[in-house]
Amino acid sequence: MARVVVDVMLKPEILDPQGQAVQRALPRLGYEGISEVRQGKRFELEVEGPVDAAALARVHELAGKFLANTVIEDFTVRVEAAEGAEGVTTA
Amino acid sequence: MARVVVDVMLKPEILDPQGQAVQRALPRLGYEGISEVRQGKRFELEVEGPVDAAALARVHELAGKFLANTVIEDFTVRVEAAEGAEGVTTA
Repeated sequence: MARVVVDVMLKPEILDPQGQAVQRALPRLGYEGISEVRQGKRFELEVEGPVDAAALARVHELAGKFLANTVIEDFTVRVEAAEGAEGVTTA
Repeated sequence: MARVVVDVMLKPEILDPQGQAVQRALPRLGYEGISEVRQGKRFELEVEGPVDAAALARVHELAGKFLANTVIEDFTVRVEAAEGAEGVTTA
């Protein structure tokens, strides 16, 4: 059993009104010096069995099909190990 | 200028209907072996100037006030470096 994390973010060229709203609110709330905020989604998947290359490839496939809209979003898949050692594959 | 990532997830004891819906849909879509899915938010903040301990402390403070609902959500703050070296502070 291992935890695989899928991060889904809007592509850099896609406008992010949610993130902009946060960024514009921060100075008013007393936090200067944050020049950009972008908001995305994080999925934590508990995968049964060993997380080998094949299992990661399947997670990558399902992430691209169901978790991200790859027309407007990028995603990364990585194994989250307890020691902080991480293997990353990028969309 | 550095990118600081704030991950916001529901606390483990809080029900996550969004994640459950994804998890229950996966076998039907041909993906077995995923025993749990939890869905949260990921914020990418571009911080001006050096990201020292004080700057990280401020991001941690604003994340706890404005990005996460700490009654039901946990959050982590980390600096995302280009080489993948990361410093993590946990809520």
